[in-house]
Amino acid sequence: MPLSPADDAFADALAATLAPDTLRRAEPRYLEEPRGRWAGAAGWVARPRNTDEVAGIVSACARGGVGIVPYGGGTGLVGGQVCGADQPASLILSLERMTAIRAIYPQENVLIAEAGAILADVQAAAAGQNRLFPLSLASEGSARIGGLLATNAGGVNVLRYGNARDQVLGLEAVMADGTVWHGLSRLRKDNTGYDLRHLLVGSEGTLGIITAASLKLSPRPTATGTALLTVTGPEAALSFLALARDHLGEAVSAFELMHRTGFDFLAETLPEVRQPWAEPPNWVVLIEVGLSGGADPQAGLEALFAAAHAAGLVSDGLIAQSEQQARDFWALRERIPEANRRIGAVSSHDISVPLGAIPDFIATCGPALARIGTFRINCFGHVGDGNLHYNVFPIPGETRGDHDDKRAAIKACVHDHVHALGGSVSAEHGIGRLKVDDLERYGDPVKLAAMRAIKNALDPNGILNPGAVLRRL
Amino acid sequence: MPLSPADDAFADALAATLAPDTLRRAEPRYLEEPRGRWAGAAGWVARPRNTDEVAGIVSACARGGVGIVPYGGGTGLVGGQVCGADQPASLILSLERMTAIRAIYPQENVLIAEAGAILADVQAAAAGQNRLFPLSLASEGSARIGGLLATNAGGVNVLRYGNARDQVLGLEAVMADGTVWHGLSRLRKDNTGYDLRHLLVGSEGTLGIITAASLKLSPRPTATGTALLTVTGPEAALSFLALARDHLGEAVSAFELMHRTGFDFLAETLPEVRQPWAEPPNWVVLIEVGLSGGADPQAGLEALFAAAHAAGLVSDGLIAQSEQQARDFWALRERIPEANRRIGAVSSHDISVPLGAIPDFIATCGPALARIGTFRINCFGHVGDGNLHYNVFPIPGETRGDHDDKRAAIKACVHDHVHALGGSVSAEHGIGRLKVDDLERYGDPVKLAAMRAIKNALDPNGILNPGAVLRRL
Repeated sequence: MPLSPADDAFADALAATLAPDTLRRAEPRYLEEPRGRWAGAAGWVARPRNTDEVAGIVSACARGGVGIVPYGGGTGLVGGQVCGADQPASLILSLERMTAIRAIYPQENVLIAEAGAILADVQAAAAGQNRLFPLSLASEGSARIGGLLATNAGGVNVLRYGNARDQVLGLEAVMADGTVWHGLSRLRKDNTGYDLRHLLVGSEGTLGIITAASLKLSPRPTATGTALLTVTGPEAALSFLALARDHLGEAVSAFELMHRTGFDFLAETLPEVRQPWAEPPNWVVLIEVGLSGGADPQAGLEALFAAAHAAGLVSDGLIAQSEQQARDFWALRERIPEANRRIGAVSSHDISVPLGAIPDFIATCGPALARIGTFRINCFGHVGDGNLHYNVFPIPGETRGDHDDKRAAIKACVHDHVHALGGSVSAEHGIGRLKVDDLERYGDPVKLAAMRAIKNALDPNGILNPGAVLRRL
Repeated sequence: MPLSPADDAFADALAATLAPDTLRRAEPRYLEEPRGRWAGAAGWVARPRNTDEVAGIVSACARGGVGIVPYGGGTGLVGGQVCGADQPASLILSLERMTAIRAIYPQENVLIAEAGAILADVQAAAAGQNRLFPLSLASEGSARIGGLLATNAGGVNVLRYGNARDQVLGLEAVMADGTVWHGLSRLRKDNTGYDLRHLLVGSEGTLGIITAASLKLSPRPTATGTALLTVTGPEAALSFLALARDHLGEAVSAFELMHRTGFDFLAETLPEVRQPWAEPPNWVVLIEVGLSGGADPQAGLEALFAAAHAAGLVSDGLIAQSEQQARDFWALRERIPEANRRIGAVSSHDISVPLGAIPDFIATCGPALARIGTFRINCFGHVGDGNLHYNVFPIPGETRGDHDDKRAAIKACVHDHVHALGGSVSAEHGIGRLKVDDLERYGDPVKLAAMRAIKNALDPNGILNPGAVLRRL
């Protein structure tokens, strides 16, 4: 059944049932996405204050057959939060007013946050109780919990703590018919039926709207160490990772690989970012360890460096001697995406491959792309998780616009390489609206059939985030 | 639509399509369950050798409208593996011949095992590569991976490493229509659509039949320490756990609470189990820590004991001085279930509550039960996860049979207390056929509706493990 538009008549009728100022015309910020690749159609945004209001809005949309686009911090990179003009206008449902941290149980390592809570605020609330909420990523100052869970966000601490889904004990969510699932469990173990929590996490708002989450906190490591090490290449980086985990177990919290291209881009576009070398190395690993039980991370990193150097894996290295220096090392990694945006990528890829396939991927994909054109490749990312951001840029003097005609071929080349190695064409950003075609092309057909059956079962009229993840037939 | 029975005519027709000896009449062992509470109806068992054969058998059952009961190691405690006589006979599908460890990738911390692989064999294969497969429980010598994942098994290491589902990177599974989902991912990050993996894990064979799994391995701690500590009560045990995690972070691998009743039962039924005290204490904690990075667990436990003693949380303690002593400490915990069986419980409960609610639960449930009758209560378990085995026994001189008339009231009393505290009436054993009523009584109605919709979507004819988890309508 085709959807009805969230037009003025619908909005007027809905507004009459809601508190004043809940519904209004969507300002441009609701219609944009961070990379500025496309714009949403003008329409209405609802900003409920509590779960009952969300349920009321969803019920009204269910009765009217009107689509809903759930909206968190708006930081998603695959257009899951932007309704395209090819669909009848959806109602944007922003969780921005539901920002409460409802409760915190330090002894239980549990925190209950509403969907609109900003990640940095949740981290701070946990830290205030000497606990760690380990989800951490570049947009943490504006990304909201609901969106982070709906997209199963990744970030820099996945190696040790897992993805966003691994931080969730329970959910409260509004289903497509407006009913509310009260699942804010504080339990570590609960085997009573299908895991609806993990089904909603990562479903990008297409199966239900998360309104609150019960989040798992972790102990805070008592001491942290950070080092920047020059490795001979991706293969050596992986051997070094294995060595680090043999030495330090799961204390290895982050393990990021960076190619020289990133440092060149930083020098070119953000010269204020301090680089601790005269000539950037070709491949650098940023490692962070967090230890407990009185162990000394400095000594651990020194012993690790000595062993890795003896094994020929690392040629040079800096162990941060202060918190400031650790922050400087991290700034190198964290400001690369900004440098990338200033250069302007022809095509960006958020991919993962099995760890052992990383060297093969890097060795073969670059030459294959060179057959399409002459580009600069910035390959960096969470190599400990097999997750690379593999972005293709014009050479100096050219712009991304010069290569518009090659973008599809570049993307297909990268994704075909990834797929052939058993990898994923969306490691941490999700499908959204950008990668619906990719999912159809590369996804397992039996999994896709199951996904369609589940979508149809839980949202038979297809009102939840229409066109995201699965094509609306 | 009612199911057709897996009768001789169906078996004859199916056998003609299969390799010889794949199908035979089910011996009694397929019709029993460990507690001997009920028996399955006689029938046929299929023992396929590979995934294609599983798919062929499921396709034949789909065409014939015949139910299938997937069968692993047969160690489940809620009857998920036993088809009752109230249904048309189902075909038992045993994965016992699919025991291969297909591959192991030590550098990636990945192991791929078929569903019939026995847990202890998977642990050993991981250890052979200096890796840890952390899932560990009493039945690990006979429980099989497929069943362990289908039931999202728990065990003693959940505190540090999570439940069975947290060890899974990907699955291969046969769906209700006989199609095969090829999802044996080795990826740590893959956000391409709904998480079918987590939906099948814990669905107890009602949504698909797991044929193989890609499992996550962990670094092996370089040094382990074990201690047995007398605590003043459950409240002190929880404060001690918080203190232990402040001291040692996630190095706390196991944290088990035991009540004196368990030691009395051991003395009564298994006197060969050495007990390190003249008079058993009322409450004892068994703690295990596994450290990396050169830290000394002995020293860590000593410092922890000193701090806990100063805080008045522990009154006495033994730190294992040898591996043998550590094994002796663990034997106390691991042989309690056997002692329980010898005593004979009137009613057993596998429950969890929020950590902070444990003292309240223990303080209130016992007196409530005393209003039903005079019993001995053995309360022990994975208190670090909020998971207690809370089992009710006759007093000396009486038998469980003397209290058959009180069993329902006891169970309702325990489960009502658990539910009122936000707990779960099945923490780690699952629903199976034993707890279908409990799920209907205590489950969130919106979650139940979603579960039924999902079951109907993925198994529209209801052939997969009929009557388990959800009532067949």
